[in-house]
Amino acid sequence: MTLKVGVIGVGMIGQDHIRRLTEVLSNVQVVAVSDIDNERAQSAAPNGAKVFDTPSELIRSELVDAVIICSWGPAHEEQLLECIAAKKPVFCEKPLVTTEAAALRVMEAEVSFGQRLVQVGFMRRFDADYRRLKAVIEGNSLGAPLMYRSVHRNPSVPEGLYISDMLLNDTLVHDADISRWLLDDEITDVEVRVPRQSSHNKNLRDPVLVLLHMSSGALVNVEISVNINYGYDIRGEMSCEKGVASLPNRPATVISDVHGIRQAIPEDWRERFIEAYDQEFREWIVAASQGGATGPSIWDGYAATLTGDAALRAVDSGSIEKISMCEKPKIYN
Amino acid sequence: MTLKVGVIGVGMIGQDHIRRLTEVLSNVQVVAVSDIDNERAQSAAPNGAKVFDTPSELIRSELVDAVIICSWGPAHEEQLLECIAAKKPVFCEKPLVTTEAAALRVMEAEVSFGQRLVQVGFMRRFDADYRRLKAVIEGNSLGAPLMYRSVHRNPSVPEGLYISDMLLNDTLVHDADISRWLLDDEITDVEVRVPRQSSHNKNLRDPVLVLLHMSSGALVNVEISVNINYGYDIRGEMSCEKGVASLPNRPATVISDVHGIRQAIPEDWRERFIEAYDQEFREWIVAASQGGATGPSIWDGYAATLTGDAALRAVDSGSIEKISMCEKPKIYN
Amino acid sequence: MTLKVGVIGVGMIGQDHIRRLTEVLSNVQVVAVSDIDNERAQSAAPNGAKVFDTPSELIRSELVDAVIICSWGPAHEEQLLECIAAKKPVFCEKPLVTTEAAALRVMEAEVSFGQRLVQVGFMRRFDADYRRLKAVIEGNSLGAPLMYRSVHRNPSVPEGLYISDMLLNDTLVHDADISRWLLDDEITDVEVRVPRQSSHNKNLRDPVLVLLHMSSGALVNVEISVNINYGYDIRGEMSCEKGVASLPNRPATVISDVHGIRQAIPEDWRERFIEAYDQEFREWIVAASQGGATGPSIWDGYAATLTGDAALRAVDSGSIEKISMCEKPKIYN
Amino acid sequence: MTLKVGVIGVGMIGQDHIRRLTEVLSNVQVVAVSDIDNERAQSAAPNGAKVFDTPSELIRSELVDAVIICSWGPAHEEQLLECIAAKKPVFCEKPLVTTEAAALRVMEAEVSFGQRLVQVGFMRRFDADYRRLKAVIEGNSLGAPLMYRSVHRNPSVPEGLYISDMLLNDTLVHDADISRWLLDDEITDVEVRVPRQSSHNKNLRDPVLVLLHMSSGALVNVEISVNINYGYDIRGEMSCEKGVASLPNRPATVISDVHGIRQAIPEDWRERFIEAYDQEFREWIVAASQGGATGPSIWDGYAATLTGDAALRAVDSGSIEKISMCEKPKIYN
Repeated sequence: MTLKVGVIGVGMIGQDHIRRLTEVLSNVQVVAVSDIDNERAQSAAPNGAKVFDTPSELIRSELVDAVIICSWGPAHEEQLLECIAAKKPVFCEKPLVTTEAAALRVMEAEVSFGQRLVQVGFMRRFDADYRRLKAVIEGNSLGAPLMYRSVHRNPSVPEGLYISDMLLNDTLVHDADISRWLLDDEITDVEVRVPRQSSHNKNLRDPVLVLLHMSSGALVNVEISVNINYGYDIRGEMSCEKGVASLPNRPATVISDVHGIRQAIPEDWRERFIEAYDQEFREWIVAASQGGATGPSIWDGYAATLTGDAALRAVDSGSIEKISMCEKPKIYN
Repeated sequence: MTLKVGVIGVGMIGQDHIRRLTEVLSNVQVVAVSDIDNERAQSAAPNGAKVFDTPSELIRSELVDAVIICSWGPAHEEQLLECIAAKKPVFCEKPLVTTEAAALRVMEAEVSFGQRLVQVGFMRRFDADYRRLKAVIEGNSLGAPLMYRSVHRNPSVPEGLYISDMLLNDTLVHDADISRWLLDDEITDVEVRVPRQSSHNKNLRDPVLVLLHMSSGALVNVEISVNINYGYDIRGEMSCEKGVASLPNRPATVISDVHGIRQAIPEDWRERFIEAYDQEFREWIVAASQGGATGPSIWDGYAATLTGDAALRAVDSGSIEKISMCEKPKIYN
Repeated sequence: MTLKVGVIGVGMIGQDHIRRLTEVLSNVQVVAVSDIDNERAQSAAPNGAKVFDTPSELIRSELVDAVIICSWGPAHEEQLLECIAAKKPVFCEKPLVTTEAAALRVMEAEVSFGQRLVQVGFMRRFDADYRRLKAVIEGNSLGAPLMYRSVHRNPSVPEGLYISDMLLNDTLVHDADISRWLLDDEITDVEVRVPRQSSHNKNLRDPVLVLLHMSSGALVNVEISVNINYGYDIRGEMSCEKGVASLPNRPATVISDVHGIRQAIPEDWRERFIEAYDQEFREWIVAASQGGATGPSIWDGYAATLTGDAALRAVDSGSIEKISMCEKPKIYN
Repeated sequence: MTLKVGVIGVGMIGQDHIRRLTEVLSNVQVVAVSDIDNERAQSAAPNGAKVFDTPSELIRSELVDAVIICSWGPAHEEQLLECIAAKKPVFCEKPLVTTEAAALRVMEAEVSFGQRLVQVGFMRRFDADYRRLKAVIEGNSLGAPLMYRSVHRNPSVPEGLYISDMLLNDTLVHDADISRWLLDDEITDVEVRVPRQSSHNKNLRDPVLVLLHMSSGALVNVEISVNINYGYDIRGEMSCEKGVASLPNRPATVISDVHGIRQAIPEDWRERFIEAYDQEFREWIVAASQGGATGPSIWDGYAATLTGDAALRAVDSGSIEKISMCEKPKIYN
């Protein structure tokens, strides 16, 4: 009844998930931990959890019902393949993998197994605001969705660690995935425009405007700024045939003072999406306890990889870049 | 076709009305000015306007079609009676007069004349936000109005010049008049509660909460603060049987910065009600050009006087204080 | 490490708490259930939980670490006294008890025991919006709080079951408790005004306006409507010396369509406060696991009882009704 | 002191301006009218105004101090040239002219005259919301502006009369002009993307997304929908280095009812911009009375013409289309 999970990779996000699994969520127990830094693994492991020397041993251990992968991206492919070989449900933080070829290999493994085992960490799909927005669109009272505007603003990024390509192959993937999900559609083409640049971080290509062309013809425009200073501001607005539906402001106290009538903006993604992360794991626990997976799939991780690749080509070419997906395996319908 | 008006009293508000009549409004011309300070009258008079030594001469002059009274309150009764005697339309800044007896005398004069000549300066009735609010209530889609909440917040008042009684016999009258107008109803009883006091101006009874009981049973609660520092904030919320209708925020730029998502608040009543003042005179000019008056009447000024008196009694007694109005003359229906 | 709880009373709210404890919350297990309707207890009991014939047996059972009381109000006193005698932590749904004398008896029992065991179910204190509002007030950037406006609107109440007195001794207690908590203050006097009545339910005294005078002089005005049709709308606005702080709108999708730019309003208290209930129990589980209690106390339940009593006296007398509390025992500081 | 104006063209917009000049504005008088339909001219002419058979006669008449051109676009060039020849100030409704060559000819005439005589009817620049937005940007507290989002939504357009090209050479010019003005910048390149189409009017290319590249590198994205049903919704959002500034919602009553918490949206451009039109003429009257012109100039009309032309080329080519402006004559600085 209690899902016994092993966590691979206990950096910042891995530690936060261990806290979540231990203190917030029910019907789950962290029984195993592994990290390339064994000392870090020892200190992050909750009471009673076993520390494994390698991901492989953790994955194969009989203690472990299901696996959470929070290692760095290049390690994901091998770990995913081992989980699938061991027939264990797995939650994999984004990115799924780092190349199209790797995505195809893990997809083939899961398809061969015959049913879904992997959930990918696109937490926005579990956010209550996005879910209500999707419900409005699907309710169809506004007619067909024609254009979506996605705004992704970060107050700052770690200088040196965060490089220009990451706006397009790391930050953008959240907007791309949520657009696919809200529109129930696939991206066929990508364009990138680079406007006047912010003076805050001269080494970065920041901001950018990205156009995602969807298979239905719907057009997504994404504004990404990663040094905008004032807060972490995520907005979304769907223009439909008969009306418009948008994400609300976050529910902060309304203060009237010398700065005006105002509401605070979240400081960062942790504050903005903390409940979405909780819900993401709540649903994963239910599915993994039944031996399977729901939510964002390897197919979605594959689409994100292709979108990031196309965006990087587009910023170089200045042109429209096509995305060619393989045929969609039935287990992803 | 052009209404020729004389202005009595050219202090701050008188000068502002001359600017308005000269620069903003059409079909009107300021042809005469009078003030107890003759030099001030000379300097305030627009090109071509004659300066009169006394209000009486101005009122009786053949140059003058209609009169605007901006002198201090105690002088209003005599000037109003002279205007009515001269059968000239008149705009009278609030307060109409300063005592119940005086109000009854000017009312009697106008009633004897047989039709309205006087419009009183309750400018809120000409504000687009209040007018839309009234239209919603009268549209009746929300059912009968049961309670009204009126909030009247001033950033500050002139120390020394503004005394405690003025919260109740000067500031309150705007809330009282707009409540009567929105509800199309009369005030029958007044209560005043004095909460914990602001430390900003220790000589003032500030803030106060006032309850106005209406003839229909509707209950108005008025919050008045006159030193609240952050801005001039006027709010109104009508609770009806099936819903609620409220004044909107003022239309200031939405700024997202380190202070949050925010909109500026008006600094003072000039900024908040500048368009209402323009519209107030626009409608007065139309009515006065036809020899009459519409909008707030002597009856409304009389009601305001009684409300202020009752509020002062109520703050002393701590009890509910009744208002007894005379029978309403037909010309005010 | 897992808190084993027994639930007394499995009506609507008791069943909802069992769902919450079983499906949402961690570190807790429902091991025992009791209800006057034994069949209902059988069907509500989760797998593995024992059904007891009487509350007393449940409370005394060694299976049970802590107790949740969801029975009807008149039964609370005896059950609370038994829990305290058994030295077991207890969560008691509101009302704590139904008379002042009963409140004093349970308080005396807890004080004799020497430390807190009881948490009372005022869930608003656990709502994120109210907590942020309290943080702003305590941050003191707006100066001292002078007036609080609490709006409590229900779309409807069950006809026949909900009687007029319940606006004052059942619905009002939430506004009274949250006002005491936000202001960190006690209620000294209560007034009730009965405005024009809604035509929706002719047998009810609805709406009412309640004034709560606080010990600091701060004045609370509470608008209660229980048949307002359009939604469950809870608002709060604190007027301070230098500014105002208010609860935000709930975070619903912003829809622009033929009805305007709009956001949905919660349908009922379940929707509005679902997360507050979760958080209420999260914190109770932590404290009860350590053998004690935090959050709303017997003292707060006692204050609520006195406020309801005074409000009922005030609606009859039309006057201001005093509240006299006993001296506050140290364990409640 | 009173500006005597002649109005050429008394269709819907011409008649509305006559109403405005007659009933709303001061220091102006309509003394002459001309229209290709002489009967329509007769009936639109206010009391005392002379009806001229031809625009030329009106322009040359000694009765007329200044001219307002509301005829159809193709007639503008000749009328403007005659006004400039007659050295008379002129207000010209948009479009200035219909071809780049014509724009250059009227510009050359005005430059030869040596100072500005012509104001073009881009009324958004006179709207209080846009003016406040510009003031915030110029205040520079948010850093340099990098991206602007302009949303232009019409509930419907007259079927048959409004054709696809008009989204780009008629509707778009307002967004283009306001972007140039807000950013104090010129458009260098135009791109058009055509997303999934609305099913409301199958003969129209609707909606479109337009990218305007500015000389500073700032990037404008314009969403145009002309059949969106729900209302006339104009939005603008400037993303700067340190924050974002946006147009507010229009100030409609906040209604809480079964449709949610909501505010009405303007029905059409008349409702949205009525005050902007008034202010546009207020400022024109001041400048024309002094024999000159301020506000949007022939240069701005020329820029609008080039933008519309480029947008039409861009929708055909699918590529980025350059705009080449002549050198800017000094009188436009």
